[in-house]
Amino acid sequence: MPRYVLRVEYDGAPFVGWQRQAEGLSVQQVIEEAASALNRGRPVEAVAAGRTDAGVHAAAQVVHLDLDREVEPGTVRDALNFHLRAHPVSVLAAGLAPPDFHARFSAIGRAYRYRILDRRSPPALDRGRVWHIPRPLDARAMAEAARVLVGRHDFSSFRAASCQASGPVRTLDRLEVQRVGEEIVIEAAARSFLHHQVRTIAGTLRRVGEGSWTAADVARILAAADRRLAGETAPAAGLTLTSVTYPDGLCPV
Amino acid sequence: MPRYVLRVEYDGAPFVGWQRQAEGLSVQQVIEEAASALNRGRPVEAVAAGRTDAGVHAAAQVVHLDLDREVEPGTVRDALNFHLRAHPVSVLAAGLAPPDFHARFSAIGRAYRYRILDRRSPPALDRGRVWHIPRPLDARAMAEAARVLVGRHDFSSFRAASCQASGPVRTLDRLEVQRVGEEIVIEAAARSFLHHQVRTIAGTLRRVGEGSWTAADVARILAAADRRLAGETAPAAGLTLTSVTYPDGLCPV
Repeated sequence: MPRYVLRVEYDGAPFVGWQRQAEGLSVQQVIEEAASALNRGRPVEAVAAGRTDAGVHAAAQVVHLDLDREVEPGTVRDALNFHLRAHPVSVLAAGLAPPDFHARFSAIGRAYRYRILDRRSPPALDRGRVWHIPRPLDARAMAEAARVLVGRHDFSSFRAASCQASGPVRTLDRLEVQRVGEEIVIEAAARSFLHHQVRTIAGTLRRVGEGSWTAADVARILAAADRRLAGETAPAAGLTLTSVTYPDGLCPV
Repeated sequence: MPRYVLRVEYDGAPFVGWQRQAEGLSVQQVIEEAASALNRGRPVEAVAAGRTDAGVHAAAQVVHLDLDREVEPGTVRDALNFHLRAHPVSVLAAGLAPPDFHARFSAIGRAYRYRILDRRSPPALDRGRVWHIPRPLDARAMAEAARVLVGRHDFSSFRAASCQASGPVRTLDRLEVQRVGEEIVIEAAARSFLHHQVRTIAGTLRRVGEGSWTAADVARILAAADRRLAGETAPAAGLTLTSVTYPDGLCPV
């Protein structure tokens, strides 16, 4: 059974998230149904690098799946897009993967972007893509506080109660905050993230941006390893999975 | 009756266009209803600088309307946004205008952006915001052909049959084509445009980009003053009104 790897873009708004749920439509389901149509009706399982939550977007999710027979990768991409046309999900690229390639377990890095629209008026063109904060935030203070979180730490304060990861220790390789016009853009990269980690970081940095907390407060919150101390979980709509990295040469897309 | 001027952002997708129609929801209607709520229920007429078609977006439409009593401009902005919250329409700024200010007739310039997504795979995140052209376009050839159209010309070849303007002559001040990543972005500016002018230009430049036509063909099409010779009217979704200009100091937003 040849293994294919896909790079996939999606708008998370209409979905219950990547993963199949008892109720509601998931990105996994629409991709598996499209792949099954291409696989002569036989079921196909799709595995993603990052199991994005409901409403979270992807600019470059990586997915693997096995087909019964070998199909030219360009045909896989185009056929999947044909079957996906009713949904805001697009296969940007497809490639034949080594048989031991695993979208999730082979990945050595994930990057996310969190967008805050920092202006008085609500978004019209970017509805569902940003967190709207009507009061002015201090992006420089947020950037300074972000530096406290970079590195290897116990991130218990920034982890959802629902998090199923075995431990709370993660290494945050990058956490940058920049003002870009009316937006404040947070870019985060790590080998892997805890559940809601980026959104809890965004909710915490917002408190710094509005002047309620300082970088020293964020350091204290981190050290306390207590979720009740950090800021709110920022809305899913502002979050986009922007890239997934693999060891050199392993991922063909 | 104090006159207010608004800078307004909207997603054109759910609307029949700026202007009220017998059927369907217009941007004008939702703004007039919001303004009426602020005007103690008395009807308000809203006049826009550019009467955008169904599906066309605005990053900075300019609108004027009169209220029965004077209200602080920041309150006008916030109250309108409160009443508009069910719709992807946002008032970015409001100001008190001179009584003879007219959003449409006082304007001395309009600028539009047309976005083409030039890649094999369809858009997911930019659905409804771009024209998807799956085959590679030559942006440099498009930019060269665009230069033919700049200046004062009879634009009959680039005018909808439905155009109600008194004459077909317009002065195109700017028409630039640039590749930006996977997109080809067309920026157009003029004192005023004919109906469908930017979209017909985009449809024509696309034919140049795919190699069917040259800049010389575009010059011939322009000179012929015959709509049947130009390219198709590009889809509304790719078009955004990006700015409206007024004589110095006239427009407070």
